[in-house]
Amino acid sequence: MPTLNEFQLPEVYDALESEVRSYCRGWPVEMAGASGSWLTDTSGRRYLDFFAGAGALNYGHNNPILKGALIDYLSRDMIVHALDMATEAKTAFLETFQRLILEPRGMDFKVQFPGPTGTNAVEAALKLARKVTGRESVVNFTNAFHGMTLGSLSVTGNSMKRAGAGIPLVHSTPMPYDNYFGGVTEDFQWFERVLDDSGGGLNRPAAVIVETVQGEGGLNVARTEWLRALAELCRRRDILLIIDDVQMGCGRTGKFFSFEEADIMPDIVTLSKSISGYGLPLALTLFRRDLDVWAPGEHNGTFRGNNPAFVTAKTALETFWQGDAFADQTLVKGGFMRDRLNAIADSHPRITARGRGMAQGLKFEDAPTAARVCRAAFERGVLMETSGPADEVVKLLPPLTTPDHELACGIDILAESVATALS
Amino acid sequence: MPTLNEFQLPEVYDALESEVRSYCRGWPVEMAGASGSWLTDTSGRRYLDFFAGAGALNYGHNNPILKGALIDYLSRDMIVHALDMATEAKTAFLETFQRLILEPRGMDFKVQFPGPTGTNAVEAALKLARKVTGRESVVNFTNAFHGMTLGSLSVTGNSMKRAGAGIPLVHSTPMPYDNYFGGVTEDFQWFERVLDDSGGGLNRPAAVIVETVQGEGGLNVARTEWLRALAELCRRRDILLIIDDVQMGCGRTGKFFSFEEADIMPDIVTLSKSISGYGLPLALTLFRRDLDVWAPGEHNGTFRGNNPAFVTAKTALETFWQGDAFADQTLVKGGFMRDRLNAIADSHPRITARGRGMAQGLKFEDAPTAARVCRAAFERGVLMETSGPADEVVKLLPPLTTPDHELACGIDILAESVATALS
Amino acid sequence: MPTLNEFQLPEVYDALESEVRSYCRGWPVEMAGASGSWLTDTSGRRYLDFFAGAGALNYGHNNPILKGALIDYLSRDMIVHALDMATEAKTAFLETFQRLILEPRGMDFKVQFPGPTGTNAVEAALKLARKVTGRESVVNFTNAFHGMTLGSLSVTGNSMKRAGAGIPLVHSTPMPYDNYFGGVTEDFQWFERVLDDSGGGLNRPAAVIVETVQGEGGLNVARTEWLRALAELCRRRDILLIIDDVQMGCGRTGKFFSFEEADIMPDIVTLSKSISGYGLPLALTLFRRDLDVWAPGEHNGTFRGNNPAFVTAKTALETFWQGDAFADQTLVKGGFMRDRLNAIADSHPRITARGRGMAQGLKFEDAPTAARVCRAAFERGVLMETSGPADEVVKLLPPLTTPDHELACGIDILAESVATALS
Amino acid sequence: MPTLNEFQLPEVYDALESEVRSYCRGWPVEMAGASGSWLTDTSGRRYLDFFAGAGALNYGHNNPILKGALIDYLSRDMIVHALDMATEAKTAFLETFQRLILEPRGMDFKVQFPGPTGTNAVEAALKLARKVTGRESVVNFTNAFHGMTLGSLSVTGNSMKRAGAGIPLVHSTPMPYDNYFGGVTEDFQWFERVLDDSGGGLNRPAAVIVETVQGEGGLNVARTEWLRALAELCRRRDILLIIDDVQMGCGRTGKFFSFEEADIMPDIVTLSKSISGYGLPLALTLFRRDLDVWAPGEHNGTFRGNNPAFVTAKTALETFWQGDAFADQTLVKGGFMRDRLNAIADSHPRITARGRGMAQGLKFEDAPTAARVCRAAFERGVLMETSGPADEVVKLLPPLTTPDHELACGIDILAESVATALS
Repeated sequence: MPTLNEFQLPEVYDALESEVRSYCRGWPVEMAGASGSWLTDTSGRRYLDFFAGAGALNYGHNNPILKGALIDYLSRDMIVHALDMATEAKTAFLETFQRLILEPRGMDFKVQFPGPTGTNAVEAALKLARKVTGRESVVNFTNAFHGMTLGSLSVTGNSMKRAGAGIPLVHSTPMPYDNYFGGVTEDFQWFERVLDDSGGGLNRPAAVIVETVQGEGGLNVARTEWLRALAELCRRRDILLIIDDVQMGCGRTGKFFSFEEADIMPDIVTLSKSISGYGLPLALTLFRRDLDVWAPGEHNGTFRGNNPAFVTAKTALETFWQGDAFADQTLVKGGFMRDRLNAIADSHPRITARGRGMAQGLKFEDAPTAARVCRAAFERGVLMETSGPADEVVKLLPPLTTPDHELACGIDILAESVATALS
Repeated sequence: MPTLNEFQLPEVYDALESEVRSYCRGWPVEMAGASGSWLTDTSGRRYLDFFAGAGALNYGHNNPILKGALIDYLSRDMIVHALDMATEAKTAFLETFQRLILEPRGMDFKVQFPGPTGTNAVEAALKLARKVTGRESVVNFTNAFHGMTLGSLSVTGNSMKRAGAGIPLVHSTPMPYDNYFGGVTEDFQWFERVLDDSGGGLNRPAAVIVETVQGEGGLNVARTEWLRALAELCRRRDILLIIDDVQMGCGRTGKFFSFEEADIMPDIVTLSKSISGYGLPLALTLFRRDLDVWAPGEHNGTFRGNNPAFVTAKTALETFWQGDAFADQTLVKGGFMRDRLNAIADSHPRITARGRGMAQGLKFEDAPTAARVCRAAFERGVLMETSGPADEVVKLLPPLTTPDHELACGIDILAESVATALS
Repeated sequence: MPTLNEFQLPEVYDALESEVRSYCRGWPVEMAGASGSWLTDTSGRRYLDFFAGAGALNYGHNNPILKGALIDYLSRDMIVHALDMATEAKTAFLETFQRLILEPRGMDFKVQFPGPTGTNAVEAALKLARKVTGRESVVNFTNAFHGMTLGSLSVTGNSMKRAGAGIPLVHSTPMPYDNYFGGVTEDFQWFERVLDDSGGGLNRPAAVIVETVQGEGGLNVARTEWLRALAELCRRRDILLIIDDVQMGCGRTGKFFSFEEADIMPDIVTLSKSISGYGLPLALTLFRRDLDVWAPGEHNGTFRGNNPAFVTAKTALETFWQGDAFADQTLVKGGFMRDRLNAIADSHPRITARGRGMAQGLKFEDAPTAARVCRAAFERGVLMETSGPADEVVKLLPPLTTPDHELACGIDILAESVATALS
Repeated sequence: MPTLNEFQLPEVYDALESEVRSYCRGWPVEMAGASGSWLTDTSGRRYLDFFAGAGALNYGHNNPILKGALIDYLSRDMIVHALDMATEAKTAFLETFQRLILEPRGMDFKVQFPGPTGTNAVEAALKLARKVTGRESVVNFTNAFHGMTLGSLSVTGNSMKRAGAGIPLVHSTPMPYDNYFGGVTEDFQWFERVLDDSGGGLNRPAAVIVETVQGEGGLNVARTEWLRALAELCRRRDILLIIDDVQMGCGRTGKFFSFEEADIMPDIVTLSKSISGYGLPLALTLFRRDLDVWAPGEHNGTFRGNNPAFVTAKTALETFWQGDAFADQTLVKGGFMRDRLNAIADSHPRITARGRGMAQGLKFEDAPTAARVCRAAFERGVLMETSGPADEVVKLLPPLTTPDHELACGIDILAESVATALS
């Protein structure tokens, strides 16, 4: 088994790519091929992917059905880049999204293509919420992650990333996420009280933006009752509820939208990452029909019409979301993962399992331990990353399509890595 | 010849897509195929593309060499989505970019992949400039366009788009772009004076961000002497010069970077749109090696490693940028366009030709006239859009690879459309 | 007994003074003379002053000793206006303040004259805290009141007053004041946790600004243990503690500074209102010697050297603050007031007594009740005002020099007014 | 003749007063008495005051008529501090201000008492302008000075003072003041063009704030035609025009308001400094009746009803402003000053005379020269200060009541000081 130090990147990374690069530091190999839950590096070594492009590959790498549709589209010289012109591929995607996703869920929503990344979708959501309400302030939650452009960064918690802005980030106020105080405090005590107090000093918010499970924040899971109470709190006070489903949507926690389990209906939803199904850039901002106050062209973006992504996105919806089977299977696989993680946690004091659906992980005492676990896993051929405010959580985001025996195999290696890291 | 009113979009656009959609309103047809400078709609009608994805398709639609490389890559199940892991495709792109672009121009720059859109590249550039200098303020120019996320929007001029922010956009101060006063005023009189006046009230800027030709702003062309003076002004005062080459880079004005003609060296450069060569999302932020003060992961983004785009980008560089021939050809074609446009302008009072390289256009008296010209051209099968603060400029951005006879044909139709619009 | 409607103001107020005027609406009489705790209107009617210029008249109106010193100073043609030139009067004030206030309390502080109003003192405090720390954000508390200029207003809680800014007020974050949750929640749970969480999303504060008793906020009293814990929280995290003693300083709660009882030492203190002793405009910003990083002239103001105010301020210090007697007497009088208020509260459900020292009051169920009480008191010749987020608290701020029988008389009338208002 | 180094301040200034102190550094003497245009220090040395409390003493020190009224008021135990209650003194002031100032000038304005300092008056003006228009941005001018609280500071030019804010000052955009380019450039070319350009990138301003003569900015005088054009520019675009007459109002340039000469009518006017006439803190914000959208109490301040200042203010109006004589006399005295200054300037290359009315001065080549002039004048017993972005202007603001021979005497000493400084 090779150790991390024996791996080496091609020279050009060190010489040419900015110091901002990150994943290639922990996994210093040059990847070549990929299929299902596996990556292969240029030396032929294989890696089981428990990371899935940070949630962008819910259906695994290079799913053959999607691949077929994509190559067929490209081969026929169909249009690739179209800004927001109507295209055959876009029409098909919109109709499929309407038929398989919105309609069955009773969502009378409009769809915006805000540019092909999650942060674009969040920026569009914030702009729209401010335009609709005429207010500037947005409430976010501790340990939230919403993106790196200025608007999204202002509602993100991580202090290192916030500092990168170079200007004071304003118009946002953090509130405690569910269970922030370990269950001691009544959930919305502070938020509700300061909202309703005319002397509270809180600028009245246009919107609340929330993730149902905070992936980057360390796999913090909001309870369904908390989400319901939050939705009700917003509804009663005419504050828009934005659910950022960029990472937890597209089935990561079971159902297509992560908020379905809580049986709530947000006002605005952001989707990206796995929406194209093939790792191609695409993003959507969805909102209630009556909130569609945009003027034509008021928000735009060169790559908002990425047609290859429409093709794979439509095919992915047809392949995985015709009924409930896929969601059900994810819950089963997630349950399996959680059982195995619980077993690991039970055998080690100061480790706890956490997560929902197939977003699962282990929380360690500190960052060095979590880092040692990931390193040991990498040396054993499994990719997993850390998250959380102190990088103390090992996060598992395997493709939802990972077969059971590969899930088992990956978690076996995790268990071994934990043992190694703690020894 | 059909008139605009006879065209019709599939119903789903009206029913489902947000009112923010724009291009599909002026060109209400469903596109299907595309090749070179031509698009084909689902009824089989063909359109000559003098718009090129707003500059994202400098090498035309579905260039066969790039297409071959792309399909080959996908067919072999090479990795598609890789965040910022090292991959074979990324290595090849970086090495090629270094060899064909940076080295020959003596640019000792680092490369950042900030997320796959122009606005991401601009946000990263602004963040870096603020981090390096410790200052907040940025100077932009009248009629600038840099993107729709909050950071980029704050340095964008268009008042309708700015209003979309829903919060006051601050930390930026507009200065007059070259020739803003029609040549009457000494160029940097105001900017230099207020910078050097300790009582001027201008927050000292971290950076100046500028386009060498303002595409969205109405094809305003900065003279080389103005750009040189601006670079010198920044250099003497320790202000970073950011050139946003998202639209004008990748050969649109002749050489690879639009600032080469002025023989200046900016501190930071943004590239996107045509860098992938195939209309796939990709963006770069380039900066002087000594400015690379990023911490690992301080700026990130899910789609910053779009490997299909690396493949086509590398192939595009090899195909078009091995020597000077492509740049030279663009200047010749651009010259041809300009001669023809001058001829049109000469025959109509109150029309002027403007532009540089193959970014050329006609300025009309008002927006309705320009809109009528574009509509008449569309009805005759040519796509061209308006730009400028009052949408009074018809902008031509044909693929740089457009054959001469197609250029001639398109401009003939433009001339006819002008005649129609003015009659 | 006349009713409110029978009073009438001279016509010029309605005709000429802005709608922003307020006190003259509730007390529509033209005042003429004043002495001790009494005002006299132009019709000869007398009013017992339980309001004391909102705390600016701790030693009553026109104290004869101060009056003597003032008239003597003016009569001798001593300098009145001197910006920040040295003057005999200023020297005497500084020496006296050092001798009677700073030295006995072991305060090695510098004194700044920031302009003659409380909000000027707060603005200077905030600017200094930001300059010293290099941070922008300031933490304030729910229902805080610090002034009406932009910096002070941004740390003020009242939503009506905040809205007056006309711009989003940023760089401040409200935290719950002591007992905000009625004792249910551990005091600094939220504040400490979010400060220490690197993913909390709170911009790290330069300073915390707090009143020991929130006068305008409704006579909310912070417990000494809460203040001590707050001071310790700031100390451990290198956050500056600003105590705004504009209303509660100068003996209102007993000792000269309101924070002495808690035995804490803030980093910065603001004083104004009663510091001149005679109702003349004067303000001080005090800070630890090592925080004096001001450059000469970096903050200034035309009336920062109000020499008549120096004269009365110095005389007031000599008259009232040579020893502990005055503070002790205030505590006794305050105790008397509180006993009487408790008695009123005990006899009415839903009324509670609150306050500290001679800042005492009654909290009613709602604003209309409190307003009726004040109106009934006015009709009976006693001036008292409402405060609190919903104007539901009747606040008593009699001059500290009010004789016992006048205190008793005023509270008798209050009791009568309460009975009337509730009947 | 003593030199500066021989003077010495009492120890307490160095030991106790903040480093922010300024005037006492250049004039290190302890002042005692004052009368007319003369100050006397504690050693009995006399100083001719060509500084007049930075414009707060237009009627000189301790004018006997005002003094009589003031002492009479205080002696009779009339009310001193009254917040915004109606008082006999306030009624008299309002009626007199209406009768002698507003009515004769046809100004249908409301009067607000915003707190007793110039910066309070400016803050109130900015808040009101933003409230009325619903816009945030304000246009100010190069080298403007409006005060030290955050709102006023954001529209102030001086970079040292701006840096004192400790936060980025936003919502303001500087424009070139009249003659900023030495007459080369068409006056409002930049401002008008960028306002009217929908792509200009300038946030649409709520208001323009301007001084007719920039005192602190170095005695820059706006021409009447420039002011008229500015007023017209604002009027046509529905932008409120705020004239900050804190320093130049109350007759400093001749007529009561400094803008009368230009025959324009601003929307909002600020007054302070000399409005009380006796150096007592008082300030007014005046605005067109229809702009009075304040809610009661929306802006307040403890010392907004400084009754001794009302008494002297009313007496000053009656004494000096019953007719045109005082204004006429100021113009004559100002003319005399200017002739003498021109003579000095003519005899020295690189010195220019500048100013209007009795705000006059000399501009030197650099700050050290101007400082040497002021120092030489002080050693000869005349107080004058420097101003301007580089402190290169010696500013003369003698009391308007200064007798001719004292004016002559002071200017003789100035001439001598110039000769000394240049030798």
